[in-house]
Formats: sequence, C-alpha cells, structure tokens
Amino acid sequence: MSQPLIAPSLLAADFANLQRDLNLINRSEADYLHFDVMDGEFVPNISFGFPLLEAARTHCQKPLDVHLMIVQPDRYIDAFADGGAAIIHVHYEACTHLHRTLTHIRERGCQAGVALNPHTPVEGLIDVLESIDVVLIMSVNPGFGGQAFIPHTLPKITRLKQMLVANQSAALIEVDGGVGVGNAAALLQAGADILVAGNSVFRAADPIEAVQQLKNSHRPTMA
Amino acid sequence: MSQPLIAPSLLAADFANLQRDLNLINRSEADYLHFDVMDGEFVPNISFGFPLLEAARTHCQKPLDVHLMIVQPDRYIDAFADGGAAIIHVHYEACTHLHRTLTHIRERGCQAGVALNPHTPVEGLIDVLESIDVVLIMSVNPGFGGQAFIPHTLPKITRLKQMLVANQSAALIEVDGGVGVGNAAALLQAGADILVAGNSVFRAADPIEAVQQLKNSHRPTMA
Amino acid sequence: MSQPLIAPSLLAADFANLQRDLNLINRSEADYLHFDVMDGEFVPNISFGFPLLEAARTHCQKPLDVHLMIVQPDRYIDAFADGGAAIIHVHYEACTHLHRTLTHIRERGCQAGVALNPHTPVEGLIDVLESIDVVLIMSVNPGFGGQAFIPHTLPKITRLKQMLVANQSAALIEVDGGVGVGNAAALLQAGADILVAGNSVFRAADPIEAVQQLKNSHRPTMA
Amino acid sequence: MSQPLIAPSLLAADFANLQRDLNLINRSEADYLHFDVMDGEFVPNISFGFPLLEAARTHCQKPLDVHLMIVQPDRYIDAFADGGAAIIHVHYEACTHLHRTLTHIRERGCQAGVALNPHTPVEGLIDVLESIDVVLIMSVNPGFGGQAFIPHTLPKITRLKQMLVANQSAALIEVDGGVGVGNAAALLQAGADILVAGNSVFRAADPIEAVQQLKNSHRPTMA
Amino acid sequence: MSQPLIAPSLLAADFANLQRDLNLINRSEADYLHFDVMDGEFVPNISFGFPLLEAARTHCQKPLDVHLMIVQPDRYIDAFADGGAAIIHVHYEACTHLHRTLTHIRERGCQAGVALNPHTPVEGLIDVLESIDVVLIMSVNPGFGGQAFIPHTLPKITRLKQMLVANQSAALIEVDGGVGVGNAAALLQAGADILVAGNSVFRAADPIEAVQQLKNSHRPTMA
Amino acid sequence: MSQPLIAPSLLAADFANLQRDLNLINRSEADYLHFDVMDGEFVPNISFGFPLLEAARTHCQKPLDVHLMIVQPDRYIDAFADGGAAIIHVHYEACTHLHRTLTHIRERGCQAGVALNPHTPVEGLIDVLESIDVVLIMSVNPGFGGQAFIPHTLPKITRLKQMLVANQSAALIEVDGGVGVGNAAALLQAGADILVAGNSVFRAADPIEAVQQLKNSHRPTMA
Repeated sequence: MSQPLIAPSLLAADFANLQRDLNLINRSEADYLHFDVMDGEFVPNISFGFPLLEAARTHCQKPLDVHLMIVQPDRYIDAFADGGAAIIHVHYEACTHLHRTLTHIRERGCQAGVALNPHTPVEGLIDVLESIDVVLIMSVNPGFGGQAFIPHTLPKITRLKQMLVANQSAALIEVDGGVGVGNAAALLQAGADILVAGNSVFRAADPIEAVQQLKNSHRPTMA
Repeated sequence: MSQPLIAPSLLAADFANLQRDLNLINRSEADYLHFDVMDGEFVPNISFGFPLLEAARTHCQKPLDVHLMIVQPDRYIDAFADGGAAIIHVHYEACTHLHRTLTHIRERGCQAGVALNPHTPVEGLIDVLESIDVVLIMSVNPGFGGQAFIPHTLPKITRLKQMLVANQSAALIEVDGGVGVGNAAALLQAGADILVAGNSVFRAADPIEAVQQLKNSHRPTMA
Repeated sequence: MSQPLIAPSLLAADFANLQRDLNLINRSEADYLHFDVMDGEFVPNISFGFPLLEAARTHCQKPLDVHLMIVQPDRYIDAFADGGAAIIHVHYEACTHLHRTLTHIRERGCQAGVALNPHTPVEGLIDVLESIDVVLIMSVNPGFGGQAFIPHTLPKITRLKQMLVANQSAALIEVDGGVGVGNAAALLQAGADILVAGNSVFRAADPIEAVQQLKNSHRPTMA
Repeated sequence: MSQPLIAPSLLAADFANLQRDLNLINRSEADYLHFDVMDGEFVPNISFGFPLLEAARTHCQKPLDVHLMIVQPDRYIDAFADGGAAIIHVHYEACTHLHRTLTHIRERGCQAGVALNPHTPVEGLIDVLESIDVVLIMSVNPGFGGQAFIPHTLPKITRLKQMLVANQSAALIEVDGGVGVGNAAALLQAGADILVAGNSVFRAADPIEAVQQLKNSHRPTMA
Repeated sequence: MSQPLIAPSLLAADFANLQRDLNLINRSEADYLHFDVMDGEFVPNISFGFPLLEAARTHCQKPLDVHLMIVQPDRYIDAFADGGAAIIHVHYEACTHLHRTLTHIRERGCQAGVALNPHTPVEGLIDVLESIDVVLIMSVNPGFGGQAFIPHTLPKITRLKQMLVANQSAALIEVDGGVGVGNAAALLQAGADILVAGNSVFRAADPIEAVQQLKNSHRPTMA
Repeated sequence: MSQPLIAPSLLAADFANLQRDLNLINRSEADYLHFDVMDGEFVPNISFGFPLLEAARTHCQKPLDVHLMIVQPDRYIDAFADGGAAIIHVHYEACTHLHRTLTHIRERGCQAGVALNPHTPVEGLIDVLESIDVVLIMSVNPGFGGQAFIPHTLPKITRLKQMLVANQSAALIEVDGGVGVGNAAALLQAGADILVAGNSVFRAADPIEAVQQLKNSHRPTMA
C-alpha cells in the first residue's frame, strides 16, 4: 500500500473566491485538481464548464483531472484538451465508441480516463484496457457532492485491481464520492491509487492539513 | 425613450474572484445580474449552473436574471426558482409546451421570460403574449461571449415592440449580445427595455462607470 | 352558428367499467369518442394506447377521434388506422414532415387532424391547409384532464376561422380542454365545429343529458 | 422448490370490464397484479399508464407489480409510487444510473425491481445486487402479450440464481412472457419465485382455477 | 422570366456507372449537380454521403449543390465544405441555430442555402434573410425520388418571391421535387431561379437534351 | 484452420465506376460483398444506403453482407432484406432489443449478424447466441476505411471462439478493419471465419489476385 495521489474536487470550493481556494490547493500536497463537468443531461445537475476551466488553469498549479459527466463527450474532448486538462475522464455509459474516444484523448496529449457508475461492472473494460490510463470508480451516483460512500465500492475496486494485474495493465484506480480519512486506508488497501476528496478537503478547518492527512492514509495507524 | 434597465452578464466576470466582481455590480446602478446557463447540448458551450448560482445569490444583491440555454428546460425550472432567480428565460426553440413552461415559471413566483434565437421570428409569440413578462432578443447566436451585434436585431425589436403595443402586452424587451454604448441608444429607440452587457461592463476599466454610461444611453448626446 | 359536433373524451371515463360508460356514449347524441394517447415523452403523462383502443372499438358505436400526444407519430399511424380510428390528430410540434404525415393518414382512409399547443400560432398551417381535415386547437396544455380553459383560445379560433375561409379550406375546427356549457356558445361563435368534453360529460349526473346540452349550445339562450 | 408467487398480467384482461376481471383476481390466490406500462418508445407498443393505475388501485386488493417499459423511468418513479405501486421494475437497458434509480424506488417505500431483456446478461447486475429486491427476467421480448416463451430463459435463470446465492442476495426472481402450466415447474426448478401470467390466466375458462394451477406448479405431478 | 439554372439530381443517376452519367452532365448546360444526402433519421431513407461526394467532385465539372437532409447538420458542414460543395443547404426544421449555421457555411466559402419542407411557411425566414443565398423549396416531401409535384408549391414560391423583393434580398429560389418540362415554366413564372431535376433528366432518352429543354422553359411556347 | 470466406468491402471501391469494380469481385473467389451503411449518427461518417444497394444487387453476383452502422436499425431491417441482403449485421451498441432484432432478421430470410465495437466484450452475447449466425468483430473503430488493425482483436477473437464452442454455437466469426495478408493467418488461427478486406483488395494492383491471396491465408507459408 503506497502513498495515494490526492485530487481535491473543485465542486466543494467557494465559487465566490476560487483564487483563494486554489491557492490553498497550490500550497498543499495535492496531486491534481478534480474538475467535475455536469451537463444536466447525463446527470441531473448542471455544474460548470469552460469559464471555470479557464479560471482553474490560470490560478491552479496542479494538473487538472477533468471528469466529464456529459452526454456524447467526443464533442468536447478537444476543447478540454485545449483548455489544459491533464486527465480527461469520459463515462463508460456515455460512450458508444469508447476505444475511439480514449484513443483521441491520448492523441491530444492527455491521459485517458474512463469513469464507471456504481452499477457498472468493471468487467466491461476487458477489451479496452490497453487504451486506459485511469479508471475512475464512482463510489456515489454522480451528480452531487456530499453523498455517502457506497460500501460495495471496496470489493468492486478489489475486482478491478485483480483484472488490471492479470492483464498487465498499469492503469491507475481513482475513487470519487464520499472519500475521507475514514475510508481512505480501506480504499488504498483494495487497490485505489488516486482519491478524490471534496467536502473533506475544502470544508475542513484546514484544507492543507486535510490533504496531508489523506496523503498519509497509507501509513498504518496506531492501535 | 426611457432609462434602460441594465443586466451585466456574469459570463464576462472573473471567475477566480467572483465576490469582488459581484461587489462591483452591487455598488453599481445595475438592475439585474444576467446569469447564462449553457448545457453543451442546446448551445455548443458549457458555462455554469447551480454551484455558481449559489455564489451569485449569496454575494449579489441584484435580482438574478437567469437565461437557460438548455434543452428541456422544464426539468430545471424548480431548481432555478429555488435557487433565487427573479426572471427565468427559456428558449422558444427548446420548448414544446411553451405556455405550460411560462405558466409554471410564474407559479414559482418568478417573471417568465422567453428567449428568441436570431433567426426566430417574433411573430411566433402571438398566442402566448399573455404569459410573458420579458422577451429576450438574442442579438448574437447564443453560446459565447464577445460576439459582434447582428444589425438586423434593430428592425426585429421594432416589430416586436409594435406587436406588444398592438396586443396591450406590458412585456419588457431585453437584448443580449454585443451590446455597448455604441448601440444602446439605437436599441432603446427601437423599443428595448433591458440591456445585457458582458465585456462592455466587466472588462471596462471601471465597471461601475460602464454601467452608468449604459444607464445614460437614453439621453440625447451632444452633437 | 350551427349545431356542434360533440366528442366526449374517454380520459374522463371510469376505466374500471368502460363498457358501461361507452354504452352511455352510444345512447347519447355524441358524434365521436375522443381518444387521448399520451406517451410520457411528448407530454408529461402516460394515458393509454392499443389495449384501450381495442376496447373502445369493440364497444363504442361512435367514430373514434384519436389524438396522438406522442413523439414521432409516423411510427404509429398505421396501427391506429388498423385499430379503427376515424380521425387521427398529430401534433404540429411533433412532426418534422407534417405534409407527409397528414397525407399518409388520408391514404389510410382516416381524416387528417393536426393539433396545436396553446402557444403555437395557427399561421404555421398556411402551407398545409389542403392536407388537413380537422384542426384541433388545444385550449389547455395537453397532458391532463380537468384543466381550466385558456381564454386566449377564443381570438385564436377566430383567426383560424378567418384563415380557413380566406383559403377556401373546409377543415373543421375542434377544441379540446376545459370545454363545457359555460363556454361552448362562445367557442361556436368564434368558429369551432367540434367540442371535446371530458369531465363535463363523464362526471355529469347524466352524461347523456350533458351531451345534449352541449349539442344545444348553438341555440340562443333566453335572457 | 417452493410455492410460487403468481402475478396475473393486466395486459390480458378485458379493458371494457376491468372491475369484473379485477374482482376475479381479488378472489383468486394471486399474489400481485402485474401492470405493464409501455410508452411506444422503449418498446414498440403503447399500453397504458396512470388512468388505468388508478382503476387498478381502486378495485384491486392485490399489491401492484408495476413493470415500466419506458425510457428514462426516473421521470415517473414518484408518480407510480404515489399511485400505489408495491414493486416498481425499471429496465436495465433504460437506466444510465441504475443504482440511483433503484435506491430512489426504495426510498419511496416500494420494492426495487430491475427487468432484463432476453439478450441482457444477468452478470451485468453484479455491482448493484444490494439495491435489488426483484429481478424480472423477460422470457419474451417486451412489448406484446401472447408471445412464445424463449427456452434459453431457463439456463439464464439458473445462472442468476447461482449469482444471487453466491452473493447472499435475497432478491426474488420473476419471469414474464409465455408462462403457463406447461413451463411453470421448470421455471421454479431453475430458481424462479414469481410467475407473471397473462393469457394463461385471463383467457382461461376459469381464471381463479388457472391461478390455482400455477400456484400448484411446485408440486410434483403424477407420472 | 429569365433562363433558369438547372441542377440535375444525382439521386436519379446510375450508381453503377456514375462517371458516365457525370460526363453527360459535364457536357450538358446544367449549372449544378444536386447532391442529396439522407441520413435515415431526418428523412426515412439513407442515400449517400462522403464516398459519393468524392466521386462527384472528381468527375463532375459542375459546382456541387449539396442538400443535407440530416439531423444536426452543423456536425458535417466543414466536411462538406472540405469536400468541395459550392452550395450547402440545411433544413429549416433541423436547425436550432439557423443564423449560426448559415453564417458558418458562408465562412467556409460556400453559398448558404436553407431548405423548407412542404408544410414549412416561408415567413419563418423573415429574420434570417440577410444570411441566405438560396432558399430551397421542397415541392415533394424529402426522402425519395420520383414523387409527384405538390401544386401548392406555386403560390408558396410567389409568396417567397414577394418577401425577398420586399426585403431587398438577392437570395435565389430553388425548387426540388417532381420538376419537369410540364411545370418548369409555371415555376419560373412564380419566381423560381434554380430547378432540380432527377428522373426528368437522368431517365430521359437524352439527358443532355432534357437539360436543354429545362433551360428553355422560360421561353414562351407556341400556341 | 480452414479456408476463410472473403468479403471485399465496397467502401474501398471506385464509386465512379462501380460496375467495373463489381465485375472484378464477380470474377474473383470472393464469398460476399461487404456493404457498409453509415448514418452519420451511430458513426461520425455518412457512407451510403439504398441507391447503392440497388446498384450492388444489380451488378454483383456475390451475396450481400450488409453492416448497419446506424442508430435504431430495426427501422431499416425490412428495407435491407427487401433490397437483397444475405447477411444483416446490427451493432450490439445500437440495439435495445437485440433478441427481437436478430429474430426479425432471420424471419426475413437473412442471416443475423451482430457487430461489436472494439471495446465491447464478447461476453455480452452469452444470452443471445442461439439467435446469431455471424459475429462481426470490429478490429478498428467503425466509421472510416483505411485504419490500422487493433492488435487486441486477436485475443478477443480467441475468447469468442471459446465461448461459441463451449455453447455449441455454429455462429461464424467475421473480422472487419485493417485486415490484409499480413494478419489474415493470425486471425484465422484465432478463430475467424470471414475476413472483410477493403483497401487490401480494391486498391491492390490486381484485386482478383488479392482476394486469392486472402483465401490462401490458411495455408502454412514456407519458412
């Protein structure tokens, strides 16, 4: 169990003062800024897109980890790549031509991520593993921040990890939804590499410290 | 020609420091904050939705003038009304049951607006005038800030004004796209009541002064 | 102002005992049975389709006046014609190729009707009048029974009647929504030919008498 | 092999006299009334919705087992829960956020069912088993009554039963399509718990007796 | 009444020997090659797209007059411009942002055309005339060759011509569907500028002569 | 490893002179003509449909192997069957009711094929194997000719072959995309039965010889 990568989710930031919140992230040990795009069509909520991407790119020094909760994401891959995304996740459930979409993300110089809704089996990735850099396991139903972690996520991650190992895939496992210090160690134990954290970072008394604690999740705690 | 209502468009604000920009609006003579929701489906751009609405409602003292550039807007009327919208505009081109949608907006205590794309004739409103509080005439194609004003908008507004007068409608006429001091007087002359201004306010050296100048558009200038 | 045709709407019948209610209609002076098909997609309600059509055809001796509140109605024209419809109405807002759809309805031996939502101007029919047998003016927003009549319907019917006369069209005008003895005379005065009546027939103490009263709407009442 | 639960399908009833047919069901040993909602979009047929639900709820004393063959079922879960459904089935093929949908059904106090088209593998449920109360295996292609049972359904049920046992799921297995006394025992043997029966009940000489025979399917027959 | 422009429609050519048929067009007085793209979604037929466009561009010396009977035509404007189209027609009924689409066609160096289905009133163009180079009036329902001319097309063209003149528009009027020597003079009389001809050219004994006859439609015939 | 069936793909032919190219196919040892229908909606390209089908049927003596890269293929099964297709492939990703669609293809006297995009696991076919005559494994992302073969296709075919054998299915395995003499032997070794070849046939110096070479792929080559 190694030290996790931490991706604070912009969705929980203070949108009236993003520069201030992004500066906190810059000064923290966070590895990415997670950027949740919701179109009101793929998910029942509308979050934000390009005007916020520009603000994030301008003021955030961490790589952008863009999660597209949108229908027909192919239409916007180029724009998000142009906008400075380091990782672009598309949803398995939104892609008719997943291999093409992932290949296109890589051709644009980004890492290719595929997000799975809670009910979507990891086995559906078996024929596209070679095109995936990151698998984003949703541990809540996408669309809203602040939801409770779905416990079944743990065995699901275990199954994914086994599949990746069995197929010599170096893809990372990212987890999004209800993640905090309470379940981080278990997630890492199951195989997670990147932890997305929203409220547990931005609504913490000290966000920098909160990131630090998540980074330390891999260390055995005193008993 | 009376003094216009001015609605600065959030789309042109600095999203890294919204509170600061909203404070400028609060201190200005602006009458509304124009709030442009784009879903990436009705228009080829994704702007922002509920997280920004909350920030705007919290920090902006002006009534929110919400412009829904989204498909099937009925799904989100309640959420925008709950979120504090004063006016909700739906697009004529997006509504199969426009009378129902406008009626529902009013039932929620908001003013009912209908937005028309540049090519959409105003005559299409003839049977729903009694349900409209504001007609939003798009003077650019919706989806992006910073576009050039379409000159044909002027005779179109004139035609709309005549229709409203002929039918004893008290609906206001709002204009959005490429509006600035250069064309404000002509728009008011044609019949406009509310002017949406993006770059011409937020990217002005002095946004408060820029709003003031737009408010003064109705005064004859020296020759 | 001549005697109207009356089309009681099945939507208001007792679905537990349709045969009994249909017998009432058979014995009444009703001219049609109005049959409201809602798919949950074009309108926000799901009513009924083919199983009920068969029951109506079997037990109702009046011609069936089928109102399709469904998307892409072309898919089901043949099935409703096969099922015994006398008139088939499609919605103007649901038809990309309205001329083809109406022509196909006639080719199937039915009368071709086009329904207009409350906000849809009658002027949109100008280039397809020769293919229309009946125009169905919605005087409520389609989707639910028991709604209040929209008063603007009256001048809209007047405009339609003028257009039909000016173009030598023999198309009939049908009105659906909130129709009863209180407004029937005004509707006929404006130009209506067929009145759809739901609750005002089926929930009357005596439905046969209620139909009779509607039939008599054209007679001047004592003052 | 225990006694099955029997759910006669309203689709095969006499829609001209539903109260009479529902009384037969009330007097029978039936456990549910199966209620097939078809929207003409998810399946190529339009059956019935809310007006019939009200009739069924009023006159049927058995719990309502509602099978939604509709697109985007989330839009109507609340209405069917309000309308008295005991079980609500959504189609696996119609749900982008199946975990959310099933969770919402349970939150509304109903049992959560998921229906699988004949070609849809049961393995697709592996990550959502904890949210399922009933799996509805379609043994014909949904859309029409009176179709012939697809024999491959038997090994499919066997596989599902094994998966449920292996995962300690208490979900019931329901089978719909071409079910009758000829195949009921084999279905129970494979693992089925609930049998939907349409024509084999309502078009039997004695529907009450027909239900009784299906209930007795679990008993070994004389050889 | 001046000499018309003639656009033989590829739809009626011999697809086994296009080069031969295109050579006939090259040698004729035809002004354009009309190229009908049908996607099976906007119209109930699938015709052809890019592989045929390449063949036409390679072997046809006449400018290509591309008629897009497809949904969401914006997706393919660039590809058809790249493929050598001289005129690109989009359907009024398929465009949510018609002004943008037409503007984009012109920006790509093509002439901007808008096609109207038989039932679509010409008045809907009133606010976009300045962006139109050609109006394509469908005189049959699009989707199939060989259909009979709809007579109402004549007064519709007359109305369009009056609107163009009244608004100082130089847009040309093109007519497609059932056009031949029998109705060409009447169409020109009404205001048509470009005649599309399918079977009446390609299935004529002498296609070159058939084009010649259509060109001569403007000359008064002997009585 | 037996001799493969060869299906040259029309997509690579010379559309200006199809009869000539089809005569080459007629004279070759090809077993089918592969016919790629793209609607611009399921795939990002528009190829051809019925006018070309008629040309192919008229001039090609080989059975037509029709690959429908279209949404909602049920709408066009009858038309392609009427048009002379011997095999009709629908895409797994495009079919909500795959069992019904395949059954309908067979009822029309054609062989039923199901095409899988590169990322779609073969395991998804487990419950519909009895209705499949041919599985079409896409070895490139559908939509364009001339793409490079995806190497992962080989283990995917191996897995499919094992599944077919384990389930006593006699379905054939067809491979489409980047197939040529360089990989044909490996594909046959993995289990392929039918090889689709586009450029490697039609753009060969001698297409007849190119087909011959592909037919001989099963023979061990000298070392």
